[in-house]
Amino acid sequence: MKLATLRTGEGTTAAVAVDAGFLPLQVRDIGTLIATPAWREAVEAALEAHAAGNGPNVVPEANANFAPAVLQPGKVICCGLNYTDHILEMGRELPAHPTLFAKFADTLTGAHDTITVRGSDNVDWEAELAVVVGKELRHASASEASEAIAGYCVANDVSMRDWQNRTLQWLQGKAFDASTPIGPVIVTADEFEANPNFSVRGYVNGELVQSGETSTLVFGADQLLAYISAFATLRPGDIVLTGTPGGVGSGMKPPRFLVNGDVLTTEIDGLGRLENTITLIPTAAPLPQPAPERQGESL
Amino acid sequence: MKLATLRTGEGTTAAVAVDAGFLPLQVRDIGTLIATPAWREAVEAALEAHAAGNGPNVVPEANANFAPAVLQPGKVICCGLNYTDHILEMGRELPAHPTLFAKFADTLTGAHDTITVRGSDNVDWEAELAVVVGKELRHASASEASEAIAGYCVANDVSMRDWQNRTLQWLQGKAFDASTPIGPVIVTADEFEANPNFSVRGYVNGELVQSGETSTLVFGADQLLAYISAFATLRPGDIVLTGTPGGVGSGMKPPRFLVNGDVLTTEIDGLGRLENTITLIPTAAPLPQPAPERQGESL
Repeated sequence: MKLATLRTGEGTTAAVAVDAGFLPLQVRDIGTLIATPAWREAVEAALEAHAAGNGPNVVPEANANFAPAVLQPGKVICCGLNYTDHILEMGRELPAHPTLFAKFADTLTGAHDTITVRGSDNVDWEAELAVVVGKELRHASASEASEAIAGYCVANDVSMRDWQNRTLQWLQGKAFDASTPIGPVIVTADEFEANPNFSVRGYVNGELVQSGETSTLVFGADQLLAYISAFATLRPGDIVLTGTPGGVGSGMKPPRFLVNGDVLTTEIDGLGRLENTITLIPTAAPLPQPAPERQGESL
Repeated sequence: MKLATLRTGEGTTAAVAVDAGFLPLQVRDIGTLIATPAWREAVEAALEAHAAGNGPNVVPEANANFAPAVLQPGKVICCGLNYTDHILEMGRELPAHPTLFAKFADTLTGAHDTITVRGSDNVDWEAELAVVVGKELRHASASEASEAIAGYCVANDVSMRDWQNRTLQWLQGKAFDASTPIGPVIVTADEFEANPNFSVRGYVNGELVQSGETSTLVFGADQLLAYISAFATLRPGDIVLTGTPGGVGSGMKPPRFLVNGDVLTTEIDGLGRLENTITLIPTAAPLPQPAPERQGESL
Protein backbone atom coordinates (compact mmCIF):
# COMPACT_ATOMS: atom_id res chain seq x y z
CA MET A 1 0.00 0.00 0.00
CA LYS A 2 1.35 3.40 -1.02
CA LEU A 3 -0.02 6.35 0.95
CA ALA A 4 0.42 10.04 0.22
CA THR A 5 -0.88 13.43 1.26
CA LEU A 6 -1.83 15.54 -1.72
CA ARG A 7 -2.38 19.27 -1.91
CA THR A 8 -5.76 20.19 -3.33
CA GLY A 9 -7.41 23.48 -4.14
CA GLU A 10 -8.95 23.56 -0.65
CA GLY A 11 -6.10 22.16 1.44
CA THR A 12 -4.82 18.61 1.56
CA THR A 13 -6.15 15.10 1.41
CA ALA A 14 -4.76 11.74 2.34
CA ALA A 15 -4.75 9.36 -0.62
CA VAL A 16 -3.88 5.79 -1.51
CA ALA A 17 -2.18 4.78 -4.75
CA VAL A 18 -4.30 2.94 -7.30
CA ASP A 19 -3.26 1.95 -10.79
CA ALA A 20 -4.30 5.20 -12.41
CA GLY A 21 -3.08 7.59 -9.69
CA PHE A 22 -4.20 8.42 -6.18
CA LEU A 23 -7.59 7.77 -4.62
CA PRO A 24 -8.47 10.52 -2.10
CA LEU A 25 -9.41 9.40 1.40
CA GLN A 26 -11.75 11.34 3.67
CA VAL A 27 -9.04 12.69 5.94
CA ARG A 28 -6.60 15.59 5.65
CA ASP A 29 -3.31 13.73 5.81
CA ILE A 30 -1.66 10.39 6.40
CA GLY A 31 -0.65 11.41 9.91
CA THR A 32 -4.29 11.82 10.88
CA LEU A 33 -5.17 8.60 9.06
CA ILE A 34 -2.66 6.34 10.78
CA ALA A 35 -3.50 7.76 14.19
CA THR A 36 -6.92 6.10 13.70
CA PRO A 37 -6.92 2.53 15.05
CA ALA A 38 -8.85 0.96 12.17
CA TRP A 39 -7.17 2.92 9.38
CA ARG A 40 -6.21 -0.10 7.29
CA GLU A 41 -9.81 -1.29 7.18
CA ALA A 42 -10.94 2.22 6.22
CA VAL A 43 -8.45 2.33 3.35
CA GLU A 44 -9.44 -1.13 2.21
CA ALA A 45 -13.11 -0.13 2.26
CA ALA A 46 -12.30 2.94 0.17
CA LEU A 47 -10.41 0.75 -2.32
CA GLU A 48 -13.35 -1.67 -2.51
CA ALA A 49 -15.80 1.17 -3.09
CA HIS A 50 -13.50 2.51 -5.80
CA ALA A 51 -13.28 -0.93 -7.43
CA ALA A 52 -17.09 -1.02 -7.41
CA GLY A 53 -17.16 2.31 -9.24
CA ASN A 54 -18.04 4.45 -6.23
CA GLY A 55 -16.17 7.10 -4.28
CA PRO A 56 -14.17 10.15 -5.29
CA ASN A 57 -12.33 10.63 -8.57
CA VAL A 58 -8.76 9.44 -8.81
CA VAL A 59 -6.06 12.11 -9.05
CA PRO A 60 -3.85 11.14 -11.98
CA GLU A 61 -0.24 10.63 -10.87
CA ALA A 62 0.94 13.40 -13.19
CA ASN A 63 -1.33 15.84 -11.35
CA ALA A 64 -0.35 14.76 -7.84
CA ASN A 65 1.01 17.65 -5.75
CA PHE A 66 2.74 15.96 -2.85
CA ALA A 67 2.73 17.49 0.63
CA PRO A 68 4.72 15.81 3.39
CA ALA A 69 2.65 12.67 4.05
CA VAL A 70 2.46 13.52 7.76
CA LEU A 71 1.69 17.22 8.11
CA GLN A 72 2.16 17.59 11.86
CA PRO A 73 4.37 14.86 13.26
CA GLY A 74 4.81 15.31 17.00
CA LYS A 75 8.43 14.20 16.69
CA VAL A 76 10.86 14.22 13.81
CA ILE A 77 14.07 12.62 15.04
CA CYS A 78 17.16 12.14 12.96
CA CYS A 79 20.18 9.94 13.43
CA GLY A 80 23.54 11.32 12.37
CA LEU A 81 26.65 9.28 11.77
CA ASN A 82 24.92 5.99 11.09
CA TYR A 83 26.63 4.70 7.92
CA THR A 84 30.18 3.55 8.35
CA ASP A 85 31.45 5.32 5.23
CA HIS A 86 29.83 8.66 6.17
CA ILE A 87 31.21 8.42 9.71
CA LEU A 88 34.69 7.87 8.35
CA GLU A 89 34.43 10.71 5.78
CA MET A 90 33.42 13.08 8.59
CA GLY A 91 36.55 11.96 10.47
CA ARG A 92 34.72 10.32 13.36
CA GLU A 93 34.77 6.97 15.15
CA LEU A 94 32.02 4.38 14.99
CA PRO A 95 29.55 5.12 17.76
CA ALA A 96 28.34 3.10 20.73
CA HIS A 97 25.09 5.09 20.79
CA PRO A 98 23.07 6.76 18.04
CA THR A 99 23.63 10.49 17.63
CA LEU A 100 20.14 12.00 17.64
CA PHE A 101 18.81 15.43 16.85
CA ALA A 102 15.39 16.87 16.06
CA LYS A 103 13.64 18.69 13.27
CA PHE A 104 10.20 20.29 13.38
CA ALA A 105 7.03 19.65 11.40
CA ASP A 106 7.75 22.99 9.68
CA THR A 107 11.10 21.63 8.50
CA LEU A 108 9.46 19.15 6.15
CA THR A 109 8.55 19.87 2.56
CA GLY A 110 7.01 18.01 -0.36
CA ALA A 111 8.69 15.56 -2.71
CA HIS A 112 8.77 17.94 -5.66
CA ASP A 113 8.86 21.31 -3.88
CA THR A 114 11.46 23.96 -4.51
CA ILE A 115 13.68 24.29 -1.44
CA THR A 116 14.29 27.96 -0.72
CA VAL A 117 17.11 28.72 1.70
CA ARG A 118 17.87 32.22 2.90
CA GLY A 119 21.14 33.15 4.51
CA SER A 120 23.30 30.06 4.01
CA ASP A 121 26.20 29.51 1.61
CA ASN A 122 26.83 25.92 2.67
CA VAL A 123 23.72 24.01 1.71
CA ASP A 124 24.54 20.30 1.65
CA TRP A 125 22.62 17.09 0.96
CA GLU A 126 21.96 13.95 2.99
CA ALA A 127 19.91 11.25 1.25
CA GLU A 128 18.13 9.13 3.84
CA LEU A 129 15.63 6.39 4.53
CA ALA A 130 12.80 7.67 6.74
CA VAL A 131 10.57 5.51 8.89
CA VAL A 132 7.04 6.42 9.91
CA VAL A 133 5.87 5.16 13.29
CA GLY A 134 2.50 3.41 13.32
CA LYS A 135 2.00 2.54 16.99
CA GLU A 136 2.85 4.06 20.33
CA LEU A 137 6.25 2.87 21.50
CA ARG A 138 7.66 3.26 24.98
CA HIS A 139 10.55 1.24 26.39
CA ALA A 140 10.15 -1.03 23.37
CA SER A 141 12.39 -3.85 22.25
CA ALA A 142 13.78 -3.84 18.72
CA SER A 143 11.26 -6.48 17.69
CA GLU A 144 8.36 -4.48 19.15
CA ALA A 145 9.73 -1.44 17.33
CA SER A 146 9.97 -3.36 14.08
CA GLU A 147 6.31 -4.30 14.34
CA ALA A 148 5.39 -0.68 15.01
CA ILE A 149 6.79 0.65 11.74
CA ALA A 150 3.88 1.87 9.62
CA GLY A 151 5.97 2.38 6.53
CA TYR A 152 9.03 3.74 4.80
CA CYS A 153 9.73 6.73 2.62
CA VAL A 154 12.52 8.79 1.11
CA ALA A 155 13.94 11.93 2.74
CA ASN A 156 16.82 14.31 2.32
CA ASP A 157 18.21 15.87 5.49
CA VAL A 158 19.32 19.04 3.66
CA SER A 159 21.82 20.68 6.01
CA MET A 160 23.08 24.23 6.21
CA ARG A 161 26.64 23.40 7.30
CA ASP A 162 27.58 26.98 8.18
CA TRP A 163 24.67 27.19 10.63
CA GLN A 164 25.10 23.58 11.74
CA ASN A 165 28.68 24.25 12.79
CA ARG A 166 28.22 27.66 14.40
CA THR A 167 27.74 25.98 17.76
CA LEU A 168 28.08 22.52 19.27
CA GLN A 169 24.44 21.70 18.55
CA TRP A 170 23.39 21.01 14.96
CA LEU A 171 19.71 22.00 15.26
CA GLN A 172 19.91 25.44 13.66
CA GLY A 173 21.53 24.03 10.50
CA LYS A 174 19.07 21.16 10.35
CA ALA A 175 15.75 22.91 10.96
CA PHE A 176 15.38 25.59 8.30
CA ASP A 177 11.73 25.89 7.33
CA ALA A 178 10.66 23.61 4.45
CA SER A 179 14.17 22.33 3.84
CA THR A 180 13.75 18.56 4.34
CA PRO A 181 11.88 16.93 1.45
CA ILE A 182 10.10 13.73 2.35
CA GLY A 183 7.91 11.38 0.35
CA PRO A 184 6.60 11.09 -2.25
CA VAL A 185 4.68 8.20 -0.71
CA ILE A 186 4.84 6.05 2.38
CA VAL A 187 5.08 2.41 1.38
CA THR A 188 3.56 0.38 4.18
CA ALA A 189 5.81 -2.04 6.01
CA ASP A 190 3.68 -5.05 5.08
CA GLU A 191 5.07 -4.78 1.54
CA PHE A 192 8.52 -5.78 2.83
CA GLU A 193 10.07 -8.41 5.03
CA ALA A 194 11.18 -7.33 8.51
CA ASN A 195 14.29 -5.11 8.51
CA PRO A 196 14.41 -4.80 4.73
CA ASN A 197 17.53 -3.58 2.97
CA PHE A 198 17.05 -0.39 0.96
CA SER A 199 19.40 1.12 -1.60
CA VAL A 200 19.61 4.88 -0.98
CA ARG A 201 21.00 7.22 -3.62
CA GLY A 202 21.46 10.97 -3.93
CA TYR A 203 22.11 12.92 -7.13
CA VAL A 204 22.95 16.56 -7.85
CA ASN A 205 21.91 17.62 -11.33
CA GLY A 206 21.76 13.98 -12.30
CA GLU A 207 25.25 13.14 -11.02
CA LEU A 208 25.33 10.32 -8.48
CA VAL A 209 26.90 11.67 -5.28
CA GLN A 210 25.66 9.29 -2.60
CA SER A 211 24.90 5.60 -2.55
CA GLY A 212 24.39 3.32 0.43
CA GLU A 213 22.63 0.20 1.62
CA THR A 214 20.61 0.40 4.81
CA SER A 215 21.88 -3.07 5.73
CA THR A 216 25.15 -1.29 6.59
CA LEU A 217 23.52 1.03 9.14
CA VAL A 218 25.23 0.92 12.50
CA PHE A 219 21.77 1.22 14.10
CA GLY A 220 18.93 -0.21 12.03
CA ALA A 221 15.50 1.41 11.95
CA ASP A 222 14.12 -1.00 14.55
CA GLN A 223 17.05 -0.37 16.88
CA LEU A 224 16.75 3.39 16.48
CA LEU A 225 13.06 3.33 17.37
CA ALA A 226 13.70 1.10 20.37
CA TYR A 227 16.55 3.33 21.55
CA ILE A 228 14.47 6.50 21.24
CA SER A 229 11.55 4.86 22.99
CA ALA A 230 13.74 4.32 26.06
CA PHE A 231 13.53 8.07 26.76
CA ALA A 232 10.72 9.50 24.59
CA THR A 233 7.42 7.95 23.62
CA LEU A 234 7.02 7.52 19.88
CA ARG A 235 3.51 7.92 18.51
CA PRO A 236 1.72 7.21 15.22
CA GLY A 237 2.93 9.67 12.61
CA ASP A 238 6.28 10.34 14.24
CA ILE A 239 9.13 10.22 11.77
CA VAL A 240 12.66 8.93 12.21
CA LEU A 241 15.38 9.63 9.66
CA THR A 242 17.99 6.91 9.72
CA GLY A 243 21.14 8.76 8.65
CA THR A 244 22.99 9.30 5.41
CA PRO A 245 25.66 7.35 3.55
CA GLY A 246 28.97 8.81 2.40
CA GLY A 247 29.19 11.38 -0.37
CA VAL A 248 27.95 14.59 1.24
CA GLY A 249 29.33 17.81 -0.24
CA SER A 250 31.09 18.96 2.89
CA GLY A 251 33.11 15.74 2.89
CA MET A 252 34.47 16.39 -0.62
CA LYS A 253 37.89 17.90 -1.23
CA PRO A 254 37.37 20.74 -1.82
CA PRO A 255 33.91 20.89 -0.20
CA ARG A 256 31.02 21.25 -2.61
CA PHE A 257 27.72 22.94 -1.77
CA LEU A 258 24.48 23.42 -3.64
CA VAL A 259 24.12 26.50 -5.81
CA ASN A 260 21.05 28.30 -7.03
CA GLY A 261 19.09 26.17 -9.46
CA ASP A 262 20.71 22.86 -8.59
CA VAL A 263 18.37 19.90 -8.73
CA LEU A 264 18.64 17.48 -5.84
CA THR A 265 17.32 13.98 -6.49
CA THR A 266 16.93 11.40 -3.75
CA GLU A 267 15.94 7.88 -4.60
CA ILE A 268 15.30 4.61 -2.83
CA ASP A 269 14.46 1.51 -4.87
CA GLY A 270 10.95 0.38 -4.08
CA LEU A 271 10.00 3.62 -2.30
CA GLY A 272 10.29 6.36 -4.88
CA ARG A 273 12.11 9.52 -5.74
CA LEU A 274 12.29 13.11 -4.51
CA GLU A 275 13.25 15.83 -6.96
CA ASN A 276 13.80 19.28 -5.49
CA THR A 277 15.20 22.41 -7.07
CA ILE A 278 17.31 24.60 -4.82
CA THR A 279 16.76 28.35 -4.60
CA LEU A 280 19.26 30.27 -2.54
CA ILE A 281 18.54 33.77 -1.27
CA PRO A 282 22.02 35.07 -0.57
CA THR A 283 21.19 38.43 0.97
CA ALA A 284 20.58 37.53 4.59
CA ALA A 285 19.42 40.30 6.84
CA PRO A 286 22.07 41.17 9.43
CA LEU A 287 21.88 38.62 12.20
CA PRO A 288 20.91 39.86 15.63
CA GLN A 289 23.91 40.31 17.87
CA PRO A 290 24.02 40.86 21.61
CA ALA A 291 23.32 44.52 22.34
CA PRO A 292 26.49 46.37 23.44
CA GLU A 293 25.21 46.87 26.98
CA ARG A 294 24.46 43.15 27.28
CA GLN A 295 27.83 42.19 25.89
CA GLY A 296 29.38 44.44 28.51
CA GLU A 297 27.41 42.80 31.28
CA SER A 298 28.12 39.30 30.10
CA LEU A 299 31.81 39.84 29.46
CA MET B 1 -2.85 38.51 33.43
CA LYS B 2 -1.84 35.06 34.66
CA LEU B 3 -2.87 32.15 32.47
CA ALA B 4 -2.72 28.45 33.23
CA THR B 5 -3.88 25.10 31.95
CA LEU B 6 -5.52 23.03 34.67
CA ARG B 7 -6.21 19.32 34.73
CA THR B 8 -9.84 18.55 35.42
CA GLY B 9 -11.74 15.31 35.87
CA GLU B 10 -12.54 15.30 32.14
CA GLY B 11 -9.27 16.55 30.67
CA THR B 12 -7.85 20.04 30.83
CA THR B 13 -9.06 23.61 30.71
CA ALA B 14 -7.40 26.93 30.11
CA ALA B 15 -7.92 29.30 33.01
CA VAL B 16 -7.14 32.84 34.07
CA ALA B 17 -6.10 33.82 37.59
CA VAL B 18 -8.65 35.73 39.67
CA ASP B 19 -8.34 36.70 43.32
CA ALA B 20 -9.83 33.49 44.64
CA GLY B 21 -8.13 31.08 42.24
CA PHE B 22 -8.50 30.24 38.57
CA LEU B 23 -11.46 31.00 36.35
CA PRO B 24 -11.90 28.27 33.69
CA LEU B 25 -12.08 29.43 30.08
CA GLN B 26 -13.95 27.56 27.37
CA VAL B 27 -10.88 26.11 25.69
CA ARG B 28 -8.67 23.13 26.47
CA ASP B 29 -5.34 24.86 27.00
CA ILE B 30 -3.49 28.14 26.79
CA GLY B 31 -1.82 27.10 23.54
CA THR B 32 -5.19 26.79 21.84
CA LEU B 33 -6.31 30.04 23.45
CA ILE B 34 -3.44 32.22 22.30
CA ALA B 35 -3.60 30.82 18.78
CA THR B 36 -6.99 32.60 18.56
CA PRO B 37 -6.58 36.16 17.27
CA ALA B 38 -9.02 37.81 19.70
CA TRP B 39 -8.02 35.79 22.76
CA ARG B 40 -7.41 38.78 25.02
CA GLU B 41 -10.91 40.09 24.39
CA ALA B 42 -12.33 36.62 25.07
CA VAL B 43 -10.50 36.43 28.40
CA GLU B 44 -11.60 39.94 29.34
CA ALA B 45 -15.20 39.05 28.50
CA ALA B 46 -14.93 35.97 30.72
CA LEU B 47 -13.53 38.10 33.54
CA GLU B 48 -16.38 40.61 33.14
CA ALA B 49 -18.98 37.86 33.21
CA HIS B 50 -17.32 36.44 36.32
CA ALA B 51 -17.34 39.88 37.97
CA ALA B 52 -21.05 40.09 37.18
CA GLY B 53 -21.61 36.77 38.94
CA ASN B 54 -21.93 34.65 35.80
CA GLY B 55 -19.80 31.97 34.25
CA PRO B 56 -18.14 28.84 35.66
CA ASN B 57 -17.03 28.31 39.23
CA VAL B 58 -13.54 29.39 40.20
CA VAL B 59 -11.04 26.63 40.98
CA PRO B 60 -9.44 27.53 44.32
CA GLU B 61 -5.67 27.91 43.97
CA ALA B 62 -5.08 25.11 46.48
CA ASN B 63 -7.02 22.74 44.19
CA ALA B 64 -5.29 23.78 40.97
CA ASN B 65 -3.64 20.84 39.19
CA PHE B 66 -1.28 22.48 36.71
CA ALA B 67 -0.64 20.93 33.31
CA PRO B 68 1.94 22.53 31.02
CA ALA B 69 0.16 25.73 29.95
CA VAL B 70 0.72 24.88 26.28
CA LEU B 71 -0.10 21.21 25.77
CA GLN B 72 1.11 20.80 22.20
CA PRO B 73 3.67 23.45 21.28
CA GLY B 74 4.86 22.98 17.71
CA LYS B 75 8.36 23.96 18.77
CA VAL B 76 10.15 23.86 22.10
CA ILE B 77 13.59 25.36 21.56
CA CYS B 78 16.21 25.75 24.25
CA CYS B 79 19.32 27.83 24.42
CA GLY B 80 22.34 26.36 26.13
CA LEU B 81 25.34 28.29 27.38
CA ASN B 82 23.62 31.64 27.70
CA TYR B 83 24.66 32.88 31.17
CA THR B 84 28.28 33.91 31.51
CA ASP B 85 28.80 32.07 34.80
CA HIS B 86 27.29 28.80 33.53
CA ILE B 87 29.38 29.01 30.34
CA LEU B 88 32.52 29.41 32.41
CA GLU B 89 31.61 26.59 34.84
CA MET B 90 31.14 24.26 31.87
CA GLY B 91 34.62 25.26 30.69
CA ARG B 92 33.50 26.96 27.48
CA GLU B 93 34.06 30.32 25.76
CA LEU B 94 31.40 33.01 25.37
CA PRO B 95 29.54 32.32 22.16
CA ALA B 96 29.06 34.38 19.01
CA HIS B 97 25.81 32.51 18.27
CA PRO B 98 23.22 30.92 20.52
CA THR B 99 23.55 27.16 21.03
CA LEU B 100 20.09 25.78 20.29
CA PHE B 101 18.50 22.39 20.78
CA ALA B 102 14.96 21.06 20.82
CA LYS B 103 12.61 19.31 23.18
CA PHE B 104 9.22 17.83 22.37
CA ALA B 105 5.74 18.59 23.65
CA ASP B 106 5.96 15.23 25.45
CA THR B 107 9.05 16.46 27.31
CA LEU B 108 7.03 19.02 29.28
CA THR B 109 5.38 18.35 32.61
CA GLY B 110 3.35 20.28 35.15
CA ALA B 111 4.58 22.67 37.82
CA HIS B 112 3.95 20.29 40.71
CA ASP B 113 4.31 16.92 38.96
CA THR B 114 6.62 14.19 40.11
CA ILE B 115 9.41 13.77 37.58
CA THR B 116 10.05 10.09 36.98
CA VAL B 117 13.29 9.23 35.18
CA ARG B 118 14.14 5.71 34.16
CA GLY B 119 17.65 4.67 33.27
CA SER B 120 19.76 7.67 34.19
CA ASP B 121 22.12 8.12 37.14
CA ASN B 122 23.09 11.70 36.24
CA VAL B 123 19.89 13.71 36.56
CA ASP B 124 20.81 17.39 36.81
CA TRP B 125 18.90 20.67 37.11
CA GLU B 126 18.78 23.82 34.98
CA ALA B 127 16.50 26.59 36.28
CA GLU B 128 15.36 28.76 33.37
CA LEU B 129 13.15 31.58 32.20
CA ALA B 130 10.81 30.40 29.45
CA VAL B 131 9.14 32.61 26.88
CA VAL B 132 5.87 31.81 25.14
CA VAL B 133 5.47 33.09 21.60
CA GLY B 134 2.25 34.98 20.87
CA LYS B 135 2.54 35.85 17.19
CA GLU B 136 4.00 34.28 14.09
CA LEU B 137 7.62 35.35 13.66
CA ARG B 138 9.70 34.88 10.55
CA HIS B 139 12.89 36.81 9.79
CA ALA B 140 11.95 39.11 12.66
CA SER B 141 14.01 41.86 14.22
CA ALA B 142 14.64 41.81 17.97
CA SER B 143 12.05 44.54 18.46
CA GLU B 144 9.45 42.63 16.42
CA ALA B 145 10.32 39.56 18.48
CA SER B 146 9.94 41.49 21.71
CA GLU B 147 6.43 42.54 20.69
CA ALA B 148 5.55 38.95 19.83
CA ILE B 149 6.21 37.59 23.32
CA ALA B 150 2.89 36.46 24.80
CA GLY B 151 4.28 35.90 28.25
CA TYR B 152 6.85 34.44 30.57
CA CYS B 153 6.98 31.43 32.84
CA VAL B 154 9.35 29.29 34.88
CA ALA B 155 10.96 26.11 33.57
CA ASN B 156 13.60 23.62 34.57
CA ASP B 157 15.56 22.00 31.76
CA VAL B 158 16.16 18.83 33.75
CA SER B 159 19.04 17.08 31.97
CA MET B 160 20.19 13.49 32.03
CA ARG B 161 23.92 14.21 31.69
CA ASP B 162 24.90 10.59 31.03
CA TRP B 163 22.56 10.47 28.04
CA GLN B 164 23.33 14.05 27.05
CA ASN B 165 27.04 13.27 26.75
CA ARG B 166 26.78 9.87 25.08
CA THR B 167 27.10 11.55 21.71
CA LEU B 168 27.84 14.99 20.30
CA GLN B 169 24.17 15.93 20.27
CA TRP B 170 22.42 16.64 23.55
CA LEU B 171 18.84 15.80 22.48
CA GLN B 172 18.60 12.36 24.09
CA GLY B 173 19.57 13.73 27.51
CA LYS B 174 17.22 16.68 27.16
CA ALA B 175 14.06 15.03 25.85
CA PHE B 176 13.06 12.39 28.38
CA ASP B 177 9.27 12.20 28.59
CA ALA B 178 7.73 14.53 31.18
CA SER B 179 11.07 15.70 32.51
CA THR B 180 10.87 19.47 31.95
CA PRO B 181 8.50 21.18 34.40
CA ILE B 182 7.04 24.44 33.15
CA GLY B 183 4.58 26.88 34.68
CA PRO B 184 2.78 27.20 36.96
CA VAL B 185 1.31 30.15 35.06
CA ILE B 186 2.19 32.28 32.07
CA VAL B 187 2.34 35.90 33.11
CA THR B 188 1.50 38.00 30.06
CA ALA B 189 4.16 40.33 28.74
CA ASP B 190 1.99 43.42 29.22
CA GLU B 191 2.59 43.09 32.97
CA PHE B 192 6.26 43.99 32.42
CA GLU B 193 8.34 46.57 30.62
CA ALA B 194 10.10 45.43 27.44
CA ASN B 195 13.06 43.11 28.08
CA PRO B 196 12.39 42.80 31.79
CA ASN B 197 15.03 41.48 34.15
CA PHE B 198 14.05 38.31 35.99
CA SER B 199 15.77 36.74 38.99
CA VAL B 200 15.98 32.98 38.42
CA ARG B 201 16.70 30.60 41.28
CA GLY B 202 16.96 26.85 41.68
CA TYR B 203 16.87 24.87 44.92
CA VAL B 204 17.43 21.21 45.79
CA ASN B 205 15.65 20.19 49.00
CA GLY B 206 15.44 23.84 49.90
CA GLU B 207 19.14 24.57 49.38
CA LEU B 208 19.82 27.37 46.91
CA VAL B 209 21.98 25.95 44.11
CA GLN B 210 21.39 28.37 41.23
CA SER B 211 20.78 32.08 41.02
CA GLY B 212 20.97 34.37 38.02
CA GLU B 213 19.61 37.55 36.51
CA THR B 214 18.28 37.40 32.97
CA SER B 215 19.83 40.82 32.34
CA THR B 216 23.15 38.93 32.17
CA LEU B 217 21.99 36.66 29.34
CA VAL B 218 24.38 36.71 26.41
CA PHE B 219 21.32 36.51 24.14
CA GLY B 220 18.15 38.04 25.56
CA ALA B 221 14.73 36.52 24.91
CA ASP B 222 14.01 38.99 22.10
CA GLN B 223 17.33 38.23 20.44
CA LEU B 224 16.81 34.48 20.73
CA LEU B 225 13.40 34.67 19.11
CA ALA B 226 14.73 36.87 16.32
CA TYR B 227 17.69 34.54 15.75
CA ILE B 228 15.48 31.44 15.60
CA SER B 229 13.03 33.18 13.29
CA ALA B 230 15.83 33.63 10.75
CA PHE B 231 15.65 29.90 10.01
CA ALA B 232 12.41 28.57 11.53
CA THR B 233 9.03 30.24 11.81
CA LEU B 234 7.87 30.69 15.39
CA ARG B 235 4.14 30.40 16.00
CA PRO B 236 1.76 31.17 18.84
CA GLY B 237 2.31 28.69 21.65
CA ASP B 238 5.90 27.91 20.74
CA ILE B 239 8.18 27.93 23.75
CA VAL B 240 11.76 29.11 24.06
CA LEU B 241 13.88 28.32 27.11
CA THR B 242 16.53 30.96 27.60
CA GLY B 243 19.33 29.01 29.30
CA THR B 244 20.45 28.42 32.85
CA PRO B 245 22.74 30.29 35.23
CA GLY B 246 25.69 28.73 37.02
CA GLY B 247 25.24 26.16 39.75
CA VAL B 248 24.24 22.98 37.94
CA GLY B 249 25.18 19.76 39.66
CA SER B 250 27.52 18.51 36.94
CA GLY B 251 29.60 21.67 37.38
CA MET B 252 30.17 20.99 41.09
CA LYS B 253 33.33 19.37 42.38
CA PRO B 254 32.62 16.55 42.86
CA PRO B 255 29.58 16.50 40.56
CA ARG B 256 26.23 16.22 42.31
CA PHE B 257 23.14 14.66 40.80
CA LEU B 258 19.56 14.30 41.95
CA VAL B 259 18.66 11.24 43.98
CA ASN B 260 15.37 9.53 44.55
CA GLY B 261 13.00 11.74 46.53
CA ASP B 262 14.87 15.00 46.01
CA VAL B 263 12.64 18.04 45.69
CA LEU B 264 13.60 20.43 42.92
CA THR B 265 12.28 23.97 43.31
CA THR B 266 12.56 26.55 40.54
CA GLU B 267 11.53 30.11 41.19
CA ILE B 268 11.38 33.41 39.33
CA ASP B 269 10.24 36.54 41.17
CA GLY B 270 7.00 37.76 39.66
CA LEU B 271 6.36 34.56 37.74
CA GLY B 272 6.01 31.81 40.29
CA ARG B 273 7.50 28.59 41.50
CA LEU B 274 7.81 25.00 40.33
CA GLU B 275 8.15 22.26 42.89
CA ASN B 276 8.88 18.78 41.57
CA THR B 277 9.80 15.62 43.40
CA ILE B 278 12.28 13.36 41.62
CA THR B 279 11.64 9.64 41.28
CA LEU B 280 14.47 7.62 39.77
CA ILE B 281 13.91 4.17 38.39
CA PRO B 282 17.41 2.75 38.42
CA THR B 283 16.79 -0.59 36.77
CA ALA B 284 16.91 0.27 33.11
CA ALA B 285 16.15 -2.48 30.69
CA PRO B 286 19.23 -3.44 28.67
CA LEU B 287 19.69 -0.90 25.90
CA PRO B 288 19.41 -2.11 22.34
CA GLN B 289 22.81 -2.64 20.78
CA PRO B 290 23.68 -3.19 17.14
CA ALA B 291 23.05 -6.82 16.26
CA PRO B 292 26.34 -8.75 15.84
CA GLU B 293 25.77 -9.29 12.11
CA ARG B 294 25.23 -5.55 11.62
CA GLN B 295 28.30 -4.68 13.63
CA GLY B 296 30.25 -7.04 11.43
CA GLU B 297 28.97 -5.38 8.26
CA SER B 298 29.56 -1.89 9.51
CA LEU B 299 33.00 -2.52 10.97
